[in-house]
Amino acid sequence: MHLSVCLRRLTLLFSLVLLSACGTDDAGPFDEEIDTSKVYRWKMVTAWPPGFPVLQEGAERFAANLEAMSNGRLKVKVFAGGELIPALQTFDAVSQGTVEMGHGSAYYWAGKVPEAQFFSTVPFGMTPRGMNAWLYHGGGLELWREVYEPYNIVPFPLGNTGIQMGGWFNKEINSMADLQGLKMRIPGLGGKVFAKAGGNPILLAGSEVYTALERNTIDATEWIAPYHDQRLGLHRAAKFYYYPGWQEPGAVLELSINKRAWNLLPPDLQAIVENAAKAENLLMASEMEQKNVVALAELRQRDNISIVPFPADVLNTLKQITEQTLADEAAQNPKFKRVHEAYKNFREQDEDWATISEKAYLDIP
Amino acid sequence: MHLSVCLRRLTLLFSLVLLSACGTDDAGPFDEEIDTSKVYRWKMVTAWPPGFPVLQEGAERFAANLEAMSNGRLKVKVFAGGELIPALQTFDAVSQGTVEMGHGSAYYWAGKVPEAQFFSTVPFGMTPRGMNAWLYHGGGLELWREVYEPYNIVPFPLGNTGIQMGGWFNKEINSMADLQGLKMRIPGLGGKVFAKAGGNPILLAGSEVYTALERNTIDATEWIAPYHDQRLGLHRAAKFYYYPGWQEPGAVLELSINKRAWNLLPPDLQAIVENAAKAENLLMASEMEQKNVVALAELRQRDNISIVPFPADVLNTLKQITEQTLADEAAQNPKFKRVHEAYKNFREQDEDWATISEKAYLDIP
Repeated sequence: MHLSVCLRRLTLLFSLVLLSACGTDDAGPFDEEIDTSKVYRWKMVTAWPPGFPVLQEGAERFAANLEAMSNGRLKVKVFAGGELIPALQTFDAVSQGTVEMGHGSAYYWAGKVPEAQFFSTVPFGMTPRGMNAWLYHGGGLELWREVYEPYNIVPFPLGNTGIQMGGWFNKEINSMADLQGLKMRIPGLGGKVFAKAGGNPILLAGSEVYTALERNTIDATEWIAPYHDQRLGLHRAAKFYYYPGWQEPGAVLELSINKRAWNLLPPDLQAIVENAAKAENLLMASEMEQKNVVALAELRQRDNISIVPFPADVLNTLKQITEQTLADEAAQNPKFKRVHEAYKNFREQDEDWATISEKAYLDIP
Repeated sequence: MHLSVCLRRLTLLFSLVLLSACGTDDAGPFDEEIDTSKVYRWKMVTAWPPGFPVLQEGAERFAANLEAMSNGRLKVKVFAGGELIPALQTFDAVSQGTVEMGHGSAYYWAGKVPEAQFFSTVPFGMTPRGMNAWLYHGGGLELWREVYEPYNIVPFPLGNTGIQMGGWFNKEINSMADLQGLKMRIPGLGGKVFAKAGGNPILLAGSEVYTALERNTIDATEWIAPYHDQRLGLHRAAKFYYYPGWQEPGAVLELSINKRAWNLLPPDLQAIVENAAKAENLLMASEMEQKNVVALAELRQRDNISIVPFPADVLNTLKQITEQTLADEAAQNPKFKRVHEAYKNFREQDEDWATISEKAYLDIP
């Protein structure tokens, strides 16, 4: 660099320094938007146990990416469920601004916001491919933000479990008769549908599932898919592994951000968060697929597991019960109805496309 | 702000100015890594026509995101095919450092790097879900980078067409006999397979496809999927629309970056590029799905199109020819063989998982 260039640069930079150091007294939000030296130290609470593979790990990878991309200007400290806030209170903590960020899934807040379930997963609903098309390009995300608006939360998709498995059973399921009185750990809407089908849904925390199944306190359980199920040891507690996971065909995981915190973030950091969330959405979903691929091969080769499909008429009956359950809820709840209709409209058109693309392709002999 | 604070800040900033303005003479790469005031002005050339929906638009959205995320420190000017470099010379332009970035698809460079095709799509190969699992978590991306290493290119997945359609035909296809001598616009490996099956593959640029089909210069053509096919007017030039697109079950689009340019980028900008590429990969793929959903509904409702499946035995025969074609190429080319085997190994395990997750789910009556 020649000296003259250096002097010109010094003069220019000194002028900028004068402008930036002393010209922003008493400024409002605009000041926060242009203060590129400010370090934002945020907290994120998740709904997952400490070290929970893929999900908690993914939330931590996302936070690390934010720090790398912002060159340290956005530092997010991640707390697993129970470390700072009980797992299922992350929605309230973000809503109230106790923390800036949360990671969970929208169906966890069904008691408070029943219509939120459509932004996570519903039985016989859309798979990850359809959900992403709806959320990013079919109006889904805008609707989700509207639904969370009264709670001061800005939601983003951040991960997906993929199509889950139907679960572990200690006996064969040949017809609807085999579900009667069956004690199964199955939460949420899936549990409601299972109860209407004559089953006996049991609520259990993840930590209790293995022991309950192994000791025959329950007859069956759904959990996630081959990778997480294998880690929990469920293949040692029941013999029949059923597919597909009609109750959760791809749970979208959500990043929730306190609205005030979000609005105070400078535009470049907002862009960083938005893009990092999309990146992690894809990364986490792809990791689930890859890990399930590996775990399924291990379950087949090492363990004496029967991996079997639910009979078509059982699935079809459960599907009809699900449609009735959603319609009943919609009839009583206008907010639920509105989201249900938007979801259903996209889903119906998407189903036609899925039939001639994915299904037709996978059907090739 | 109090005056004393202002003065302290001035002193501090002035010292930084001295350091940053005059202390970087003749510095190496390390200097470039910590110079957060430097603005990188890059060029990106694409393989798409100007304004090409989803693909060129997605490349431009990606560039806009880089600028927003970096707060203007990484400005990428995007040129469509032919605006700066002919569409199919983007690989060479990035390789030689004429431009820093390119957007295309790896099978375009099959003449130079045959094994690159596995990082785009091959007939009867993996769908987008499997490809992302393989690329991000199954070793695929590392292998891709190794393959591009001699060309000084760092590749990233950036978009996906999704499962394509089989194409437009002016007559019904009931058996392999109906393919004999059929003049069809079908490039690449699909074209090779089609020729071995007795068909007559024709090479045509996209701009010539509609007229050729409409004037019966060709009997059939594949293009992309409902949205792009409809925009090209192909539904007005042939009556039978076949599925699924065995020849391209989800072409991965690629971002290519000149290796030297990449290495000179500071770590935060590298992290920004990596995350923005993943975000755009998901966004573009989801947009294709959503637009195909809408276009398919329009094609069904407005136009007198027969949307029909290829007979199972036609697909099965084409699949066998494909496997033989890939095996023949692998036998002659050790580099091709290596990538083929990595791809095949992941694909076989993934197929088992896809069968009990996606396929079983889509098969629910």
